[in-house]
Amino acid sequence: MSLTDDQRAEIEAQRGHSQPTRRPTVPALEEMLYRAFPVLDHGFVRVIDYMGDDGAIVQAARVSYGRGTRRVSEDAGLIRYLMRHRHSTPFEMCEIKFHVKLPIFVARQWIRHRMANVNEYSARYSILDREFYLPAPEHLAAQSSVNRQGRGAVLDGAEAAEVLDLLRADAGRSYDHYLAMLNEDESGQRLNPSRQGLARELARMNLTLNTYTQWYWKVDLQNLLHFLSLRADAHAQYEIRVYAEAMMAVVKAWVPAAFQAFVDYRLGAVTLSAQMLATVRRMLAGEAATQPESGMSKREWSELMGYLDRNG
Amino acid sequence: MSLTDDQRAEIEAQRGHSQPTRRPTVPALEEMLYRAFPVLDHGFVRVIDYMGDDGAIVQAARVSYGRGTRRVSEDAGLIRYLMRHRHSTPFEMCEIKFHVKLPIFVARQWIRHRMANVNEYSARYSILDREFYLPAPEHLAAQSSVNRQGRGAVLDGAEAAEVLDLLRADAGRSYDHYLAMLNEDESGQRLNPSRQGLARELARMNLTLNTYTQWYWKVDLQNLLHFLSLRADAHAQYEIRVYAEAMMAVVKAWVPAAFQAFVDYRLGAVTLSAQMLATVRRMLAGEAATQPESGMSKREWSELMGYLDRNG
Amino acid sequence: MSLTDDQRAEIEAQRGHSQPTRRPTVPALEEMLYRAFPVLDHGFVRVIDYMGDDGAIVQAARVSYGRGTRRVSEDAGLIRYLMRHRHSTPFEMCEIKFHVKLPIFVARQWIRHRMANVNEYSARYSILDREFYLPAPEHLAAQSSVNRQGRGAVLDGAEAAEVLDLLRADAGRSYDHYLAMLNEDESGQRLNPSRQGLARELARMNLTLNTYTQWYWKVDLQNLLHFLSLRADAHAQYEIRVYAEAMMAVVKAWVPAAFQAFVDYRLGAVTLSAQMLATVRRMLAGEAATQPESGMSKREWSELMGYLDRNG
Amino acid sequence: MSLTDDQRAEIEAQRGHSQPTRRPTVPALEEMLYRAFPVLDHGFVRVIDYMGDDGAIVQAARVSYGRGTRRVSEDAGLIRYLMRHRHSTPFEMCEIKFHVKLPIFVARQWIRHRMANVNEYSARYSILDREFYLPAPEHLAAQSSVNRQGRGAVLDGAEAAEVLDLLRADAGRSYDHYLAMLNEDESGQRLNPSRQGLARELARMNLTLNTYTQWYWKVDLQNLLHFLSLRADAHAQYEIRVYAEAMMAVVKAWVPAAFQAFVDYRLGAVTLSAQMLATVRRMLAGEAATQPESGMSKREWSELMGYLDRNG
Repeated sequence: MSLTDDQRAEIEAQRGHSQPTRRPTVPALEEMLYRAFPVLDHGFVRVIDYMGDDGAIVQAARVSYGRGTRRVSEDAGLIRYLMRHRHSTPFEMCEIKFHVKLPIFVARQWIRHRMANVNEYSARYSILDREFYLPAPEHLAAQSSVNRQGRGAVLDGAEAAEVLDLLRADAGRSYDHYLAMLNEDESGQRLNPSRQGLARELARMNLTLNTYTQWYWKVDLQNLLHFLSLRADAHAQYEIRVYAEAMMAVVKAWVPAAFQAFVDYRLGAVTLSAQMLATVRRMLAGEAATQPESGMSKREWSELMGYLDRNG
Repeated sequence: MSLTDDQRAEIEAQRGHSQPTRRPTVPALEEMLYRAFPVLDHGFVRVIDYMGDDGAIVQAARVSYGRGTRRVSEDAGLIRYLMRHRHSTPFEMCEIKFHVKLPIFVARQWIRHRMANVNEYSARYSILDREFYLPAPEHLAAQSSVNRQGRGAVLDGAEAAEVLDLLRADAGRSYDHYLAMLNEDESGQRLNPSRQGLARELARMNLTLNTYTQWYWKVDLQNLLHFLSLRADAHAQYEIRVYAEAMMAVVKAWVPAAFQAFVDYRLGAVTLSAQMLATVRRMLAGEAATQPESGMSKREWSELMGYLDRNG
Repeated sequence: MSLTDDQRAEIEAQRGHSQPTRRPTVPALEEMLYRAFPVLDHGFVRVIDYMGDDGAIVQAARVSYGRGTRRVSEDAGLIRYLMRHRHSTPFEMCEIKFHVKLPIFVARQWIRHRMANVNEYSARYSILDREFYLPAPEHLAAQSSVNRQGRGAVLDGAEAAEVLDLLRADAGRSYDHYLAMLNEDESGQRLNPSRQGLARELARMNLTLNTYTQWYWKVDLQNLLHFLSLRADAHAQYEIRVYAEAMMAVVKAWVPAAFQAFVDYRLGAVTLSAQMLATVRRMLAGEAATQPESGMSKREWSELMGYLDRNG
Repeated sequence: MSLTDDQRAEIEAQRGHSQPTRRPTVPALEEMLYRAFPVLDHGFVRVIDYMGDDGAIVQAARVSYGRGTRRVSEDAGLIRYLMRHRHSTPFEMCEIKFHVKLPIFVARQWIRHRMANVNEYSARYSILDREFYLPAPEHLAAQSSVNRQGRGAVLDGAEAAEVLDLLRADAGRSYDHYLAMLNEDESGQRLNPSRQGLARELARMNLTLNTYTQWYWKVDLQNLLHFLSLRADAHAQYEIRVYAEAMMAVVKAWVPAAFQAFVDYRLGAVTLSAQMLATVRRMLAGEAATQPESGMSKREWSELMGYLDRNG
């Protein structure tokens, strides 16, 4: 992660301020506020603001005049009930705002989650920093042979080194030419007085997709959990999963009861199709159950065996 | 407005608490927090929580590491620029949560604004209070003769009195029968031990549309301003406009710079169609301009003359 | 269901027209087009328009230049894969538009599904018909004693008769007074020339919540399936479930492959929490499994036993 | 535009099919269906499907049982009224689906419009084509000196030539290295049997932002018009504006009455702030009006003078 001294000073200045509020606060999240949690080689996740806590979920579910909370165990029980039965609207009552620095190809996946508010750093207006994502060698993996959208084994050393050289050289050269076309240096200083300089909205097209961008991203808890259930999943691309994992730690500090319910009823849960359920019943009744007569494809069958810790 | 003593005590208890936070706070809005601002005969608007301030708009527009604010006048200028040019995403960075008590027929209009989060008091689960909206005599108006969805003159005394009697009697009787069908009193106490009592999800259908309901309503500033531009407008039905007006006072306290920009560029602004603009140009050039040759309908022409403070 | 002769004629006229199109068409759905399928005592569901078919889901998943479809079995396999892995965006490529007549209290539940387009008949502008929902005796149920938002046993005959009398009388009287306050009859004819007549936007508040309203409701397939998964569920209120069931038949005719995948992977599926899954594994391994040591509440335990067809 | 022969054949095959439908059809749009309208050097816009027409807007506004349409002039009048008074929901009743090929940096702007459905060609799953956007010389403009997010004068010949050389070389080299890292050719054929080949989800990060992608984009008319009002505007970046212009022609063929209302009340309209309106009134009254006493900034004043065809 590469914050400038000015950026660090701005962050520390904000952390130094404190004022009284009548709103609910979450001390564990206050402690995290504004800090940059590093992700990948130059990225980060920072919590900028938040609204609500576990109590706000309970309060909305009960539509109460005060906090609406009772004993901690009763509140947690209600939150678990709401999560289990997919009563989603009370979770929408909590809101959080992040500042995220991330490679453009990750941003393109991320933005597909439409139910959020976004303000991205504008490369029409400003010059992007000279920062691009270069995977660590252990993440330079080959195409998976079984899953057309996944990764397989790590590349061997020589091939990995060549790949890294290409990524580094192409991103660097494209960035240098970006500045050359702009006729500006990174700080916006004009380079050659006899040149006009290409418009920023055009020059940016020369950058590679591993260039870092940044944005403010604001989302309610319900939609954040949906995002995390997809992006903290083992099938998500590693480069977005690490952002999801950084945000998981934030959610755990912010709304511990909702987080635990999420882990039990979403992350650690499995959905059994009608056919899978029928098969499990048959197995429990001591009957033989085989893929061909189950109505499932081989792939589904092996998914089920995986859930049940069996070899198909 | 009819809060019970318990409800008042819950509200006061919440107002009495204060804790330190690193988040931006708005003292003028803190002062309002949790208080019930009366609307209509039994309704209210209460601010329950908020996130962000004028500075958050500026911060998002600049995607900065700290607060992003500069001099107050510069920030206000940027906010005015964003409002004027309909750069809406920075305004989405502020969020507010209201608790609202309102008649069901108003709730039905309100809910058409989809970009908000809602938790409504459930009449499947709980018993509604014996409260219904009865208009003050000065709001008992006749159907407008010029606008098929508006009001005209106030009803004369005798007709108004009859109308009020009908409204009061029908709402009261329907409510009493609602309890009778439930076989419960307002507090949920069973009435006649020999009766089963109709399910709540069914009995509610006997209530009239002026019965009060309540909900938590959470919305971002951009969507709130859109709501206010439609519902604080002179063409909005009076019974929803008064809620919009109560919320206008809240927005003014919360984000004064955004509020002023909203007043200047939305509420007090007019949109001139291509034909209207051509007519204004002609008038400024000293040329004659008449409705028939303007390309406008009579209605549009008279709208334009209204904007220009002229008699058509 | 109570269509007027004029309405029937309009519907038949539309069904009589046919024109050529290059768009994909679904003959089974064309056959249903515009027809009113009765629901409850006066309600209906009509399909007014549609866009896309099973092939459109496949086409979008493959981002192809033509139809993108291959063999029927391959396409169905892809659709099942997308449904199973919650790849939701290809299902958003199909769109359908309904005309629905429904009681207001049902409309209030329905509208909570925000991801749809709605145009409701305006009672600010027009006069509502004299139609209200009166449950058939077998649907007049008592409050459930085990589920605070459900129904229990059917009311016995005498109590049911009294309830029906109250519902009928109150709805009728409120409607008659609605017209009296309007000083109009159902067709908009002025009644008493010496009275002004209350504005429509006000008089409507005297109606009871079982009064019928109607709307055009347009939604994409993904959001429709989400609606159906909640509202065709056994826990949904009967009065909205019957609308969901009418729409299920439409979806089956429209996109048969997507419908079957929905039945297998959503409607007939169950979600096992982390604790439930651990318990099932233990049972399959022949180990004892009891509620107290399972980490589940009694309620969750009995849900699991229900899934597995066991008595807890 | 570069369609392969296979793609052309697929398109022609679809255009060749015709079947009867009871749905409303728009012959002028049927004529356009599936055809690729070229945009930029390799991009295009194709209409894939549509639902509704001008009549559907009228039908929804009237919530009618049949088509709801009357005389053409009456319908157009109602549509103009709806557009003028921002009654947006009837316009949501029409839906259209496009297939678009566009550079990634344009796609990143476009996707910010959240109220649409998108399926993008997956570079996690497939190999992108060797196509990148290279501006025509007349669009290679310098950064604007007055507008920080706009373009100024066209670059002079020598500088333009250098810029084009850099853009072409960097995009080509990055693409070639993308294939080299994949160890595949454009058709997915393995190149060097002794190499593993980098995973597609990783290799794509080496591509430059002018590489073409493609997607299916489905949107309702209301949101499409909002998109067009922002992106067909003179302040929009040229590279997205040309897509908006291609879609304008489609909308004109599809819903001619709504299109004309859009041109008159949106595209050709201006919004006067409270201060601008006060100034126009003063000018019409023959009073002197100057910027300093107007309450407007210099920039706003000059905008107003621009609207009025005056030199400030």
